[in-house]
This record gives sequence, C-alpha cells and structure tokens, in this order.
Amino acid sequence: MSLTGDMLIGSSSVPASDGAMKALNPATGERIEPEFALGGPAEVDHAARLADEAFDSYNRTGLEERAAFLELVADRLDAINRELAERAALETGLPVAQLEAEAAKTAAQFRQFADVVRQGRFRHATVDPQQPERQPRPRMDHRMQKIAIGPVAIFGASNFPILYSVAGGDTASALAAGCPVVLKAHNAHPGASVLAGRAIQSAVADSGLHEGVFSLVRGAGNEIGEALVDHPLIKAVTFTGSEGGGMALYRRAQLRPDPIPVFAEMTSVNPTFVLPAALAARGGEVGDGFAERMLVNVGQACLKPAVLLAVDGPGYAEMRDAAAVRVSAMGARTMLTPGIHDAYDRNAQRLIGSGAKPFAEGPEPQGAWEGRSQLLEVDGDQFLADPTLAEEVFGPAALLVRLTGIDQLLDVARSFRGQLSATMHIDEPDHGDAARLLPILERRTGRIVVNAFAHPQEVGHATIHGGPFPATTDSRFTSVGMSSVDRFLRPVTYQGFPDALLPDALAAGNPLGLWRLVDGCLARD
Amino acid sequence: MSLTGDMLIGSSSVPASDGAMKALNPATGERIEPEFALGGPAEVDHAARLADEAFDSYNRTGLEERAAFLELVADRLDAINRELAERAALETGLPVAQLEAEAAKTAAQFRQFADVVRQGRFRHATVDPQQPERQPRPRMDHRMQKIAIGPVAIFGASNFPILYSVAGGDTASALAAGCPVVLKAHNAHPGASVLAGRAIQSAVADSGLHEGVFSLVRGAGNEIGEALVDHPLIKAVTFTGSEGGGMALYRRAQLRPDPIPVFAEMTSVNPTFVLPAALAARGGEVGDGFAERMLVNVGQACLKPAVLLAVDGPGYAEMRDAAAVRVSAMGARTMLTPGIHDAYDRNAQRLIGSGAKPFAEGPEPQGAWEGRSQLLEVDGDQFLADPTLAEEVFGPAALLVRLTGIDQLLDVARSFRGQLSATMHIDEPDHGDAARLLPILERRTGRIVVNAFAHPQEVGHATIHGGPFPATTDSRFTSVGMSSVDRFLRPVTYQGFPDALLPDALAAGNPLGLWRLVDGCLARD
Repeated sequence: MSLTGDMLIGSSSVPASDGAMKALNPATGERIEPEFALGGPAEVDHAARLADEAFDSYNRTGLEERAAFLELVADRLDAINRELAERAALETGLPVAQLEAEAAKTAAQFRQFADVVRQGRFRHATVDPQQPERQPRPRMDHRMQKIAIGPVAIFGASNFPILYSVAGGDTASALAAGCPVVLKAHNAHPGASVLAGRAIQSAVADSGLHEGVFSLVRGAGNEIGEALVDHPLIKAVTFTGSEGGGMALYRRAQLRPDPIPVFAEMTSVNPTFVLPAALAARGGEVGDGFAERMLVNVGQACLKPAVLLAVDGPGYAEMRDAAAVRVSAMGARTMLTPGIHDAYDRNAQRLIGSGAKPFAEGPEPQGAWEGRSQLLEVDGDQFLADPTLAEEVFGPAALLVRLTGIDQLLDVARSFRGQLSATMHIDEPDHGDAARLLPILERRTGRIVVNAFAHPQEVGHATIHGGPFPATTDSRFTSVGMSSVDRFLRPVTYQGFPDALLPDALAAGNPLGLWRLVDGCLARD
Repeated sequence: MSLTGDMLIGSSSVPASDGAMKALNPATGERIEPEFALGGPAEVDHAARLADEAFDSYNRTGLEERAAFLELVADRLDAINRELAERAALETGLPVAQLEAEAAKTAAQFRQFADVVRQGRFRHATVDPQQPERQPRPRMDHRMQKIAIGPVAIFGASNFPILYSVAGGDTASALAAGCPVVLKAHNAHPGASVLAGRAIQSAVADSGLHEGVFSLVRGAGNEIGEALVDHPLIKAVTFTGSEGGGMALYRRAQLRPDPIPVFAEMTSVNPTFVLPAALAARGGEVGDGFAERMLVNVGQACLKPAVLLAVDGPGYAEMRDAAAVRVSAMGARTMLTPGIHDAYDRNAQRLIGSGAKPFAEGPEPQGAWEGRSQLLEVDGDQFLADPTLAEEVFGPAALLVRLTGIDQLLDVARSFRGQLSATMHIDEPDHGDAARLLPILERRTGRIVVNAFAHPQEVGHATIHGGPFPATTDSRFTSVGMSSVDRFLRPVTYQGFPDALLPDALAAGNPLGLWRLVDGCLARD
C-alpha cells in the first residue's frame, strides 16, 4: 500500500482545504514524507452527513453480515501488520517489534468484537409477552432491544498509535454496536493513521456497506475537533488523552442544544499498595516488577503504575532498592512527541518542587526528546498534605510513598481521586487489612488487581478500563473489553407489534437463536 | 400515622431552618395543615454525609437482605394506601380512587425490584477464568460485577404524587442498585411526600440498615436543589419534570469539579401516526381512544399523546369528530398547581398564536385553576414550518395535524425531536409504510407502540421510559422498568483475587446461583 496523505471521507480521498503537515520522527527530529492534508469544519460536515446517511442501513445489518465486516477489517489489518508497525515506529520512536504485537492485538480485537456481534447479547433482547387475561387490565406484548446510538466521533489517542488509535477499541466497539464512525486522526502519527484508515475504508467497500460507515479527518488545531463535537448529526464522542483535553470536549458537548454523551478516558496513577506480609516476604520482587511495568512504553500508558505505597518496615528497603536498580539501568528513550517530552520534564520537576526526593534515575538522555527514567519518594504525611503529588506525570517516573502504618495507608487510599486501576500485593496474613482496603478501592477504581501489575491489558468480557472521575467522564462504562460496546447502544421498546414488523432479535420463534430475557427469565427458545 | 411536617434526615425528624410552608389545595385555593419545615444546604449536607456513611454497608447488603428491605417498604406503603391517597388528593386535585391505584402500583414496584435484586442479574457477574497455559503469556483470572455508584439525589416529580415522587421508581431502583437516597420532596404535595418518606424511613430502621440509606429534605426555592446537585458526596441525580428544570440541574452537575450523571426525564409529545388503511377502517375509534388517553390525569402526564397525525382522506373526518365529541364532553378539572394551570393556558394560546385552529373544547371552567380540555388543528406545511408547534403543552390539549400524503408524514416524523414514545395505528395494508416510518421513529423515541395508546405505563423488564434528548438527558437509560436500575451501577473488575476476598456474586462455585457470563457464555454453575 503506497502511503498518500489525503483525508478519507467515505470512499473518497479528500485533499487539503487548510494546508498540509508532515509527521515528525521524534528520534531524529526530522520531518518525514509524505505531506498529509489538513481540513476543517467542511470535511467534518461532509463526513458527518455521510455517517448519518449510512446509519439506517448499517444499524440494520444482520449479525452475520456485521461480524464478517469486522473480520474483514481484521484481515486487512493483518495484511499491513509490518508496514503499519514500521511507519508507527518512525512516527513515535517506539520499537517495531512492540508495534507489530500491538497491530496484531488490534486485529484480534476486531475478531473478538465480531464474536460479540454474532452472539447478539449486546442487543439485550427482552420479551414481556402479552397477558390478555391479566386483571384489572390485560398486558400488551412488550419487546425491547438495544440499537445503535448514531454516528460516533472518535479521537485517536497518541500513546498507542495502533491499539488506541484509528482502528482501536473505540472504533471496533462503535462499529460492532452499529454506529458509523468519524475518526479524528492524531497528528503525532498521521501515516500510521491513514494506513489503518485505508484498511477499514477498503473493508467497508468490499463488504458492500454504505461508504459513510467510516471516515477519517485531520486538522491543524482544535477547530476540527470542536466541529466534530458540535456537529448535530454526531451522537456520541470518545476520547483518550489528557484530563485537560478530555474535559474541554466533555464540557463543550454538554453545551450543545442537545447534549451528547462523551466518554473520555483521561488520567490515572494506578496506585499500588504493598501490604506488610507481602512486603516482608517479597519486597524486592515487588519493587522490581513495579519498576518494570512503570517503564513500559516509556511510561506513556494509561495503566502505568505511578505510585507505590507501603508501610515502612521489613521488606521496604528491598523494594525500594530493587526498583532503583531497574530504573537506574534503563537508558533514556525517545518520547512520543516534543510536547509530551517537555510536559514530562516539567511535571517531574513539579513533584520535586512539592517535596518529593529523587532517589534513582537512569543515564543522561542523549537525544533531544528522550525521557529519563526516575524514582522519587515522599512520606505519607507529605502525600496527604499535597494533593498534586497524586497527579499523573505522563512518562517514566514514579513516586514511592513511605507510610507509618495501616491506618495511614487507608487514609491515603481514601485521598485518591478516581482511578482506572489499583493493585494490592498481599499474602494470606494481609487478608484482614486487604478486606478493609477493598471497599475504599471499589469506590475509586474500575479494576482492582491482586499480586500482579495492571499492565498489559486483557481484552475480555470481564475487562473494565474505566473508573470514577477523573479516570473517565462516566464510571458506568468501559473503553476496553467486550462491554465497551454498551457505550454506543440505547434501548427501544416495541409494544404490540405484529411479527412482520419486529426486528429479528425480537421476532417470534427467536430466529437468531439469541439468549433473551423472557418474562424475567433467560431463555434461548 | 399522624402527619407532621419535619424533614426526615436519617432516623431523625429535623425541624425547619429556613421557615415553613403549608400545602395548597388547588381545588379550593385553601392552605392545608400542618406546617412543613423548610431547610437548605445545611440539611443537604447532613443528609449527604449520612448517605455516604451508609454507602459501604448498604452496597454490601446480601441480595436476600436487600430484597426483604424493599418488600418491607412495599408493605409499609400498602399499610398507608388510603391515607396516602387521600392526602395526595387534597394536595393535587386528583381523584382518590386514581391515587389509591397509584399507591398500590408504587408498592408493587418495590416488590418487582425486590425480585430484580434476588435474581441478581443486575450485577452482570462476568468471569474470564485464568488460562495459565496461554501463549505468548498466561491470562490471569478476571471477574467483573456491577456495584452501586454512590449516594443518589432524587427530585420528586409533581404530576404523579406517589408513583413518580418520594417512593417512586427512581427511589426503588436506586435502593435496588445499592445506592443510599437523598430525596428532595416536591412542594406541591408535601404531605403525601412525608407519608411516603416515613414509610421508607421506618423500613430502613426495622431492617437494621444504616439510617443514612434514606433522607427527605425540603426547601423553599432552588437553593436546596442546587446544594444537592453540587454536593461532593452525591454521585448521581434523577429528575422528572420540565425541560427548563431538568436542563438547569443537568448543566449545573456538568460544571462540578467532578461531573456526575444526571438522568432527567423532561418533555415529550408522544406523536400518534394513523396510517391510511387503519384510518379508513377505524378512524372514529382511533380519534376517541386518542382523546381518552390525552385527557388522563388532566393531560398532566409524560406519556400524554399530544399530537395526532394522519393523511387527509377516508376516516379523517370520523377521527376528528370522535376526538372532538369526547373532548367537548370532558368538564374542566383542577390542575396540579396554579403555576401549571397558568402555563397551560399560556401554552395553549401560544399554539393558537402559531396558527393552530381550535375545533373542540370542553365546558367553561368553574374553579380558578381548572384546565379546559381542547383540540386544535394545523396542516402539515404549517407544522413543518413552525417547530414550536411540536413543543409540549402540559395539560388537556392536543394538536391534530392534517397531512397531504405519506411523504409528508415521513417528513413530519423526521422533524420531531427526541420522544419518550410514538404510536402507529396500522392495518395490514399499512405495513409497507410502517416499515418506512419505523427507522425514523427508532432514532427518535424510546418506545414505539402499535395499535394502542402509550399510557398507562407497564413496569416490566422490556419497559423503556426514556429516549433521545430532550425526552431525557441520556438515551442509553430508562427511568421506568426493571432496567432503570442500570442508571446507578458501575462495573468493577477483580483481577487475580483469592477466593476469600471476592464478592459473593463472583466467588468460586457461584454460591448465589447467579447467571454469570463465563468465558463469554452464560452459565449458572
């Protein structure tokens, strides 16, 4: 596939209306060919109109037809795995091998959503049959299914240029739900974006779907994103990125004449609590494992464990030392963009300004935008006194918090804002303390991990990548895992319908063979 | 039960901090004893703190314990059925017999939610077991359940003083979900509110639950509601009422430092489409049935069918005449409050000012706040040209729209904003047109009814009382029916947990006998 820089609007390649840009190779500082077209509100309007036109037919695709389309996207992604990974590596400074694995996982995720579509449980088909003899008045037949919410605007993320970008989980789950997608490509990896976009575009065409099912737009500043969030034909928005960026889109969407849901996944420090028995038994192992995970993707991960908390006592020094050894050995690595690099340095300095003491760092950076790995430490009183110490530093830094006892550990746990995940390292004698900590974590996190590290992410039925604000803007949903499809569905009741007009999922005789809730009981006949 | 006018905060009766009020009998214009205490932010803070204190223990109640509590509330409501209905009748002008039935349905709804709790499906228990042999790396055990979102603020509605008020579906579903409730009583029926509130308060106490599970506050102006929406310990809000009121709360909640979900059910004109064959076959029957339902509760119902649309042709005159006969025969009746009465008159005049022609009205009102029933008519071109004709008039008025053909009917259908419901009257020859109308209605409504009238509402598993904006602020949820509990739940994943620390719903061996999604398949073992 030769790389061209147009926008993809429906089946068309659309040239620039607002200038052009080239990608930056953050490892060399060089601009890379080709030029990528930039657009604005006109392209957004074009794409949104096509998406709206595509809605009725795409929302009504049969389960098999929709599943086969998602599998074709997966095949097309697999076909460009190496090309996609190499281009993404050029644009992000991340290793090709890691990006090949990321691309494979991205394709696999489309196949998983194809299974979700085939199983049809996402429809939540529910039947309350008529009761003509009921007193004091008969009950009419009521049937409910979930349908797609409408065209969805998706903002590609910067940090995983394949798995959380154009063909990421947001796109896969929105397409699985039956929603056409208008994707705003992230300007940090325009080439990887257009490669993945063309894979989807070609699968739309070869599946015989309406071209409006997928478009990819690109713009220079905030204007194009604002136009997307404001567009009356857009019915939901997803975003993965900073709290500032997410909240700007969220608040803007709430000010529309018709507010729409925005699912923004924003910020999390994923605290790791090491309880005393586990600390004493394997402090060194925990410190090493924590540091290893913290450093993944140059610390540019939503699940980066950024705060390590333990009561001072047996094993504490071993934990601290093991983490320090691993961090000190990790050379500086290129960060995703100059802006992310500069923010990293600034935020790490902010921690020091707030009284955190650096105690380990990797070798001096060689390149301009390399991030130097580092560890800092505070005590529990400091951490409780300054809430900014609990704010995310996006990059390869972590904070160790030395606590005075279990009560302070529980107090510190209560001080956290909403998180994507939290981890407890525990041994059997810690279970009593863990049982006290657990309800505190349940109220603040979307996932609680025992004796492991939150990253990497499984993509399964029980996966939740969400959590109370500011981890996300709506704790009732997840952006990763099979149930992420629920963000884009809304229920409709069909009352007193003749069978001929009922959607297949609700028809008499259950022609699709779905699990349905019939009079309050699950049944498949 | 003797009626006293305190607020109910936890187990305490709390006197006024901001003056007092008496209820108004809208049929006589007289103020009724006793005085009701008014409070403000201090009472909200007290109630919210108690709700937060109650959260951990209430969220962890066993299914049987929680179900038994909901059934006790039902018993307590049944025990005061007559007293509650009589007091509500005094405060609203609605008939006692109707209110007795409403109170019985309110109690029954608590029993239905008790069943939902016992069945435990609301937990959405999901298990992805570990796969230690998986390549390239093992999968850890992942388990997910939904837990309560936190303390919920509920605004009692004015129009159904029992079923949509203190002990209404919002309260029942929030308590079923495991959320403590802080209820803002509506000042149009303070006596009915405190009677229902004491029923819940006593059930909390006699079930041995933390007193903070339920509180009832009351205030003079907007300040108390604003304090509720702003309170950091409140984690979700529900509201049923006007678009203006709902949107004020919604926008306020989005401006909190931590935005919270607001489910506001606001406005709907519930359009009724009569297709040609059905019109020709039974226009008179449809006109009569439409008018009957329109007049229920003096037209003060969210499901009032307010717009009747048909293509001019055979049966049209019969439909129009039959509706006119019923409306002309309906005497004026007392409306809920003087404010609602005045708004009704003003909004009916607005329709006339926009060119709608009155063609039937009931007898002249006798009382000051009686609403006179009326029918108006416009043609399709007028309706398309003036969107205000599609706005709700809360009260006993409806608009007939005379259309030129099916294409105009479809255009008019596309012009509607989001609706709670829409109705199609169809016969077999209409199925082709109905199939064209259906996707237009699916995108705009939460419920589509065939050959019946939307009111009264079933409370079932397949019930959806929701819809796209401005019917509600979030089309993904419903405020009535068993799945309304989903508004108050959020998912949490437990990864790698020892069985001893897992919640019952996720424990090994499935001790609660729930349906669980295990590796993507529903299972009960």
